[in-house]
Amino acid sequence: MDIMTKLSTQPYKGTRDYYPEDKRVQNYIFDVWRRIVETYGYQEYSAPLLESLEVYTAKSGEELAGEQTYTFTDRGDRTVAIRPEMTPSISRMVAARRQDLGYPARLYSIANFMRYERPQRGREREFWQLNADIFGVDTMLADAEIIEMADAMMKAFGADESMYVIRINHRALIDQIMHEYLGLDNDRSHKLIKLLDRKAKMPAEDFVAAAREVLGNDELVVKLETLTTLQSIAELPEELQASRGALELKELFDWFDKADMTNVIFDISLMRGFDYYTGMVFEMFDLHPDNNRSMFGGGRYDGLVGLFGVEPVATVGFAPGLTTTELFLRSHNLLPELHSSTDIGIVIADDSLAAALDVARQLRREGLAVAVDITGRKLDKQLKAAVKNGIRTLVFIGSQEVSENRYTVKDMITGDEQKLVVSDIVALAKIRHNT
Amino acid sequence: MDIMTKLSTQPYKGTRDYYPEDKRVQNYIFDVWRRIVETYGYQEYSAPLLESLEVYTAKSGEELAGEQTYTFTDRGDRTVAIRPEMTPSISRMVAARRQDLGYPARLYSIANFMRYERPQRGREREFWQLNADIFGVDTMLADAEIIEMADAMMKAFGADESMYVIRINHRALIDQIMHEYLGLDNDRSHKLIKLLDRKAKMPAEDFVAAAREVLGNDELVVKLETLTTLQSIAELPEELQASRGALELKELFDWFDKADMTNVIFDISLMRGFDYYTGMVFEMFDLHPDNNRSMFGGGRYDGLVGLFGVEPVATVGFAPGLTTTELFLRSHNLLPELHSSTDIGIVIADDSLAAALDVARQLRREGLAVAVDITGRKLDKQLKAAVKNGIRTLVFIGSQEVSENRYTVKDMITGDEQKLVVSDIVALAKIRHNT
Repeated sequence: MDIMTKLSTQPYKGTRDYYPEDKRVQNYIFDVWRRIVETYGYQEYSAPLLESLEVYTAKSGEELAGEQTYTFTDRGDRTVAIRPEMTPSISRMVAARRQDLGYPARLYSIANFMRYERPQRGREREFWQLNADIFGVDTMLADAEIIEMADAMMKAFGADESMYVIRINHRALIDQIMHEYLGLDNDRSHKLIKLLDRKAKMPAEDFVAAAREVLGNDELVVKLETLTTLQSIAELPEELQASRGALELKELFDWFDKADMTNVIFDISLMRGFDYYTGMVFEMFDLHPDNNRSMFGGGRYDGLVGLFGVEPVATVGFAPGLTTTELFLRSHNLLPELHSSTDIGIVIADDSLAAALDVARQLRREGLAVAVDITGRKLDKQLKAAVKNGIRTLVFIGSQEVSENRYTVKDMITGDEQKLVVSDIVALAKIRHNT
Repeated sequence: MDIMTKLSTQPYKGTRDYYPEDKRVQNYIFDVWRRIVETYGYQEYSAPLLESLEVYTAKSGEELAGEQTYTFTDRGDRTVAIRPEMTPSISRMVAARRQDLGYPARLYSIANFMRYERPQRGREREFWQLNADIFGVDTMLADAEIIEMADAMMKAFGADESMYVIRINHRALIDQIMHEYLGLDNDRSHKLIKLLDRKAKMPAEDFVAAAREVLGNDELVVKLETLTTLQSIAELPEELQASRGALELKELFDWFDKADMTNVIFDISLMRGFDYYTGMVFEMFDLHPDNNRSMFGGGRYDGLVGLFGVEPVATVGFAPGLTTTELFLRSHNLLPELHSSTDIGIVIADDSLAAALDVARQLRREGLAVAVDITGRKLDKQLKAAVKNGIRTLVFIGSQEVSENRYTVKDMITGDEQKLVVSDIVALAKIRHNT
């Protein structure tokens, strides 16, 4: 080791170090995700960190695979990518066991991904996502389940319906509008979709001017503008009412009515970035005035599994991200106070190490998490360190306590102190552990 | 999307897909790891997937960084590596908050890593490890805690002391033996260390022949051979007894005696691959005849945090791997039967979807994990799918059941069937969930 080397303590650009207090927030979000999707019968899987690059180029087109993906050539001359998303991996896994899986196959994972992003609020190069997908159901029941689950998740985080809205659209409806209703070719259709995708972020006049440029005549612009003001499927022009997209959306909204889900709305300008969606698409929008944005989304993509040389499998899924979820929770003040995983800190008041280790073992046998300060420092230093580590309950062990078999227990939140035998310390710590 | 592209369903070389039944095993091992280290007051952190390459070259020398690490140049011309291990990252994180952390800082993570390995049993290119380290304690109490924790972990997996042994050595003792006792220069010392590291894997004659080549004369070979047969610190030659290494090991073994830890042995041939250890080193050995091997190890490395331009911080840690742990559990038949996270599968017998969804919601409100078969297939197909998904308790819902408000509940393990109201289904499923 070259002692002259002074290395930087900074993490790699666009990535974060999660110290215990940060990791607690991450774990809280992961735990809620996990609880909700498991409640709906989703089972956990995990996929490799690297995939061959072609898995992404086949699916997403060049944009994401080319510009945003971490790619390199490995020592066996394979062109590989650090996964920038999960759908290609899980589609590959389902394809590999196409015949053996039980359908509906409900699968979820919580994993990290990497993309080249200019680091900014809510965007990091390494990011964490839940991916939950249901395979093998071609009816709207799967779409409804995924959206119900996204809604249940928001409520599990303590959100109420004033804080978010779920916007829904349909790829087949968009296609029909582009090609049949507006009569656009693929090129102009593509441009208009990109434009609609940006609509919420641009002034109305700019949108109209840009739309006129793509559409070429005012009649089409009027048709488009009328469409973008629609509040419900029922308001769609007669000729679009019988399309697959409109019928499926109607079925979905009927389902939401029966399930008393009131904050789901039809949004004809919702496009979703990825090209692989084939049916319903949705986004979860944060309604907080300071943070009005799309949090995450999902939809139906029936074509991906089939790319791996097997019969296609109907798929609906969604993928909330850690960072946007954390921003949502913070802006709505929904993040609970999170405590250290350590229930008890043992502070050794004088030469009572052996007794302290013995008490620690007794407490651990009861399932409690116990950190013993084995530094031999003065009491005040031990105390400060325990506070830095976020430990609420401290037990002081000195020769006096050892002779009495009762130990001074201090609550670092209230400041309360009492002398307790071990069994009472156990009872107290278990109550605190569960609150 | 190019429909002609037929992509491979194989995962990237040396990596694994974890389907739910594999992921259950992974989660079981992670849960035991997590429970044990948290019981000792360790708190979870997480570090980035990528680090600048120099973090590894500064620490490990060229071998690991150069040949085994996944390195590439990013779009900002940084030479980065996918982490091949955790110690440099956590050392960097501790250095970055050197002044702010509470000591002892007990930190753990469960994460994936990548190295170029020729894939073989127990070795994969992507692998998972627990890393648990204690920072800021320069006495043997930290070393003892780490080894006690490794032992507690094995017992938490159901292992008894006939199944494994913990071998312990000390870097300072090795150094003293090499330089003072055997009088070797750095080069020959390095060669002999490599040789001792391979001793267990080679015939005794080959070892002696190779040792003679390094040592140059028979007297030294005899001295070395005598050393390698020692059973305890007390048997060390007089002139080595007072060395720091011997004294610290004695202190450790006294501690193990008091803690009734009987399967810890002194092994002078234990070297550990990494150059950064500065004190105690240990390895956990599997004693199973078919699988006699080192499972994982750890030790004291007081120099790493200091590489980041701050005052050094005393550190002891260990890092069990998922694959070797799984091999151990399987070869000793210690892996418990692991059930699906889904408590109940709902099978819809005729046109009773609305009722089934309603029952599912009632069960979910009780915290149960419920998968509804929404495929509309025939009963036998729904049944087979539920079995494939490892779901134990099936609830059949048809018009008959709906009119009676009692549902047929089938235990897929015993085959028992009974008709129950929802509250009784809840009670039954909760009992099964907790067993």
